Amino acid sequence: MQVKDIGEQGLLRILQKFCPAEIVGDDCAVVPTNPNQSLAITTDMLVDGVHFSDRTTGPYYAGWRAAAANLSDLAAMGATPLAVTVALAVAGDTAVEWVEEFYRGMTACLQEYDTPIVGGDVVRSPVVTVAITAFGQVECDRTISRSNARSGWAIVATGVHGASRAGLELLLNPEFGQNLEKVDRASLILAHQRPKPRLDVLPVVWEILASEGAMEPPLSPPLAKGGPGGVPSPIAIAGMDSSDGLADAIIQICRASGVGAKVDRTKIPIPDIFSEIGSPEQALDWALYGGEDFELVLFLPITNAQLLVERIGNAAAIVGITTESIDIWLTDSTGVYPDAILKLDRGFQHF
Amino acid sequence: MQVKDIGEQGLLRILQKFCPAEIVGDDCAVVPTNPNQSLAITTDMLVDGVHFSDRTTGPYYAGWRAAAANLSDLAAMGATPLAVTVALAVAGDTAVEWVEEFYRGMTACLQEYDTPIVGGDVVRSPVVTVAITAFGQVECDRTISRSNARSGWAIVATGVHGASRAGLELLLNPEFGQNLEKVDRASLILAHQRPKPRLDVLPVVWEILASEGAMEPPLSPPLAKGGPGGVPSPIAIAGMDSSDGLADAIIQICRASGVGAKVDRTKIPIPDIFSEIGSPEQALDWALYGGEDFELVLFLPITNAQLLVERIGNAAAIVGITTESIDIWLTDSTGVYPDAILKLDRGFQHF
Repeated sequence: MQVKDIGEQGLLRILQKFCPAEIVGDDCAVVPTNPNQSLAITTDMLVDGVHFSDRTTGPYYAGWRAAAANLSDLAAMGATPLAVTVALAVAGDTAVEWVEEFYRGMTACLQEYDTPIVGGDVVRSPVVTVAITAFGQVECDRTISRSNARSGWAIVATGVHGASRAGLELLLNPEFGQNLEKVDRASLILAHQRPKPRLDVLPVVWEILASEGAMEPPLSPPLAKGGPGGVPSPIAIAGMDSSDGLADAIIQICRASGVGAKVDRTKIPIPDIFSEIGSPEQALDWALYGGEDFELVLFLPITNAQLLVERIGNAAAIVGITTESIDIWLTDSTGVYPDAILKLDRGFQHF
Repeated sequence: MQVKDIGEQGLLRILQKFCPAEIVGDDCAVVPTNPNQSLAITTDMLVDGVHFSDRTTGPYYAGWRAAAANLSDLAAMGATPLAVTVALAVAGDTAVEWVEEFYRGMTACLQEYDTPIVGGDVVRSPVVTVAITAFGQVECDRTISRSNARSGWAIVATGVHGASRAGLELLLNPEFGQNLEKVDRASLILAHQRPKPRLDVLPVVWEILASEGAMEPPLSPPLAKGGPGGVPSPIAIAGMDSSDGLADAIIQICRASGVGAKVDRTKIPIPDIFSEIGSPEQALDWALYGGEDFELVLFLPITNAQLLVERIGNAAAIVGITTESIDIWLTDSTGVYPDAILKLDRGFQHF
């Protein structure tokens, strides 16, 4: 049996039996290091021609994106970045300038979040490959897991979705978006090349949750079924990042929490200029399935969600609400489209 | 300019400018997480055909070796393992059984040291590649750095050297060692395929250092020039592991500490059976430059070194002594060979 016979998900299922079940399954692994704090850890491997390509993204932005993706995983857990390590495989004929540009891009992103590269490895390989591991610290009572959502909560997207996918299309397809202003083209391309991990959202979340007036009364039975590491999370929030798409994030959180949702297609924040570059169907498709926008998708009680959206501003929006029934519906509050089940189908299968 | 023009070391020098200088340069990066404790982190990347090959080492032992190498780096810093993450790149035609065997080997080694795999990544690549990141906890006043040695200290090798290299030769060269008993062949091959990280040595070290009677009086000026992370290490020990060879370890520690050494070639512990399989020159060559024995090379005051060697037992030995002059000599206490400068030359250059 070969990997292609079972796909990435099949292989992952086999490999998960080698890991403690209670630790795996969120954006980061969470390892308790003392009674109050845990270490959040995430690893990404990037392969030349699969995860980056000079055709769409030079080494500087490939490095930026790699760093951003890992910091975004930390943000999704509520963790403050400590450091990253970088393991690098290069060929003898790899240009030194390429490697330096990759590191320049990584450090440019990391420095915005005070995160040093503290070490790594450099080896030889026929295929340029980068593995980044990011470490963060998270207080045990602030760990944001996927499995903590309850019915009747609001679903918040912290910013626009689909911009990264549109930027990729502009890079891949010269015919596309020729009617766009230069500045709008550039902004979509930057959304793809230089995404920002939403670590800035966390202090706002903590402030809202800490504010007595804004806190919902504690629910009974206790909120958490058991967050990462088996430690029940006392906070009224669940979440992950939207690196694999907004639909994926909503579905993963609903499944992990045992709730359903109604997601209103008209409430999903998309770039204003989408109206100029394609059909509403394409815009929705990119917003739900495009991926790599690196926003956070947070589930929390409605009053807090409203406060959060106000405080973050920009395009942050409540896009739906969770339900007791476990179905996940895509609805249309303007009544143009019939309700439909939201699926993972359009997701990305690696093999 | 291409990577092959400057080699692995040249590329590393360029990339180190992207890392904080005070953190890089030991077996692990050391990141303080609270006033008393630090996180020790190490990453290795392994590429099919470069770092492992089914010709000499099936997937089970490739996995074991990968785990052992990372745990050995933690041991070298004085750190207790917390967990590892594993990023894996596989091709569509990679056998699922190969991947499972690799994970079985990794976890078999990790379980001996209570270390879980807490997460990772699985991606597609034409070349099977594995990146392992191991992290451990180390008390700030027990961090073993390379730069802490002083002149007049003893150099301890915690076990035999050259066995792994001999095992590799047996695997590669069917003509070699045909005169050996089956059990001796097997033991050398296992030294190569299933090395043991010397985490067992640490409790002995702490006990000796903690014992009032055995402690040398504090030296003045303070022992440490500044250990990893810029935190001065108050303990009278320096060290690293011998993964890149005994000569490499001795030279690296001497350079980092600004001392020299006299290493007695007759004191270097080698497998007894080396007398049956080659010349004394070859035995010394393998012991000094073979690498991958994953023993610890520890520099400490003579009385403590003697205690340590007694307590560890087996083949542990004092192999030399540090000097104020920064030259590193290979001497012969039996007077057969003239003194020679110990060099890195026979080391391994990746490009």
